[in-house]
Amino acid sequence: MKQEDHVSVYEKLRALNISLSRATPAAGAYTPFVRTGNLLFLAGHIAKKNGKPWVGQLGANVPVAEGKEAARAVAIDLMATLESAVGDLNHIKRVVKLMVLVNSAPTFTEQHLVANGASELFVEVFGANAAHARSAFGVAQIPLGSCVEIELIAEV
Amino acid sequence: MKQEDHVSVYEKLRALNISLSRATPAAGAYTPFVRTGNLLFLAGHIAKKNGKPWVGQLGANVPVAEGKEAARAVAIDLMATLESAVGDLNHIKRVVKLMVLVNSAPTFTEQHLVANGASELFVEVFGANAAHARSAFGVAQIPLGSCVEIELIAEV
Amino acid sequence: MKQEDHVSVYEKLRALNISLSRATPAAGAYTPFVRTGNLLFLAGHIAKKNGKPWVGQLGANVPVAEGKEAARAVAIDLMATLESAVGDLNHIKRVVKLMVLVNSAPTFTEQHLVANGASELFVEVFGANAAHARSAFGVAQIPLGSCVEIELIAEV
Repeated sequence: MKQEDHVSVYEKLRALNISLSRATPAAGAYTPFVRTGNLLFLAGHIAKKNGKPWVGQLGANVPVAEGKEAARAVAIDLMATLESAVGDLNHIKRVVKLMVLVNSAPTFTEQHLVANGASELFVEVFGANAAHARSAFGVAQIPLGSCVEIELIAEV
Repeated sequence: MKQEDHVSVYEKLRALNISLSRATPAAGAYTPFVRTGNLLFLAGHIAKKNGKPWVGQLGANVPVAEGKEAARAVAIDLMATLESAVGDLNHIKRVVKLMVLVNSAPTFTEQHLVANGASELFVEVFGANAAHARSAFGVAQIPLGSCVEIELIAEV
Repeated sequence: MKQEDHVSVYEKLRALNISLSRATPAAGAYTPFVRTGNLLFLAGHIAKKNGKPWVGQLGANVPVAEGKEAARAVAIDLMATLESAVGDLNHIKRVVKLMVLVNSAPTFTEQHLVANGASELFVEVFGANAAHARSAFGVAQIPLGSCVEIELIAEV
């Protein structure tokens, strides 16, 4: 990102009243991110609320608005992991791709609206450099019963 | 691809009576493709019929032959996006990977046959340069109820 | 990997009494792996037992311990494919990412424990170079009814 953008990522986070927590270590035999060349591959992050899995299923007991809020919460956690990977979020050149998994009852077909909760926040915070490719779809379940899980690829 | 292949991609499309539509813009806060280095990451494209979501579920109300046809239709849309990304399909050096999501009833286990509808068309059109890695699996649902969604990575 | 690690990958496989079979060709219009630049993209490999699909569903008729064993079996098959891709497993610089699909009944929420069967084996065999990003989630079905499918990205 250009110099004038350097300040703005953190200013935008402040304007949105978002503070990044320390990235939480991965809960298993894996790591939260791997860098290879200029690409950063982030592990799937599950939605959490008050530090615990944000449990539920879209189309069953989680309405779209809440699912979108959960996806936004995951985006904040992904930003914390990005920061722990590169030190300064302004070193992220580009958000490349999101894979958004939505814990879905068989009849729920609005995974794209849920996913927008993450996509829109990335664009708000990173601007044009956050325009990313994306897949969103409904899965049968997510670890610990979380309602949303998101995996991310970024370019440094 | 080599010079002699330059003509053949479009000739093969003509021989198959396939015309690429203008790539449709992504229906959300994201973009249809992102290029990073020599890699192109395409967003998940859902199956459409006559411009509308190709609704249904394999193992329920969509037979394998129709699912395969839907996957082929997605492949055509992915080619349109590839063309809009690089201008000329002959600049695509390699199809790297497909992720094929099949909207599946709990008992349907032939996702690989559905996915072949896309894989076979890529090989027909691009030849040896289309030999790709692939994952195919059954998902609980897909945005707008579409029966198939495919994400693609290509090398430019 | 450094010279002192060169011997140890195969020594570790021997110590674990693991012999890699010839990688089986992909069962469809695709290939088991594609290399682009320094990245190797492996196709989704389904769990097999005695050469046949390891059929079943977590939360229904496959307990976690068996699912974990199935994931470990997939990891061994992925290593065979890695070997066929690069000739010598010591040329694998890094396991970058796993995507672990777990055939899951609607109530099963321990996909991460199943996935550990693969992740832990990679770390045992490759050491620190196997620390990878990972997504694990529950899918509605997997080709041929297999209980686990895993896709892998590695750096050469």
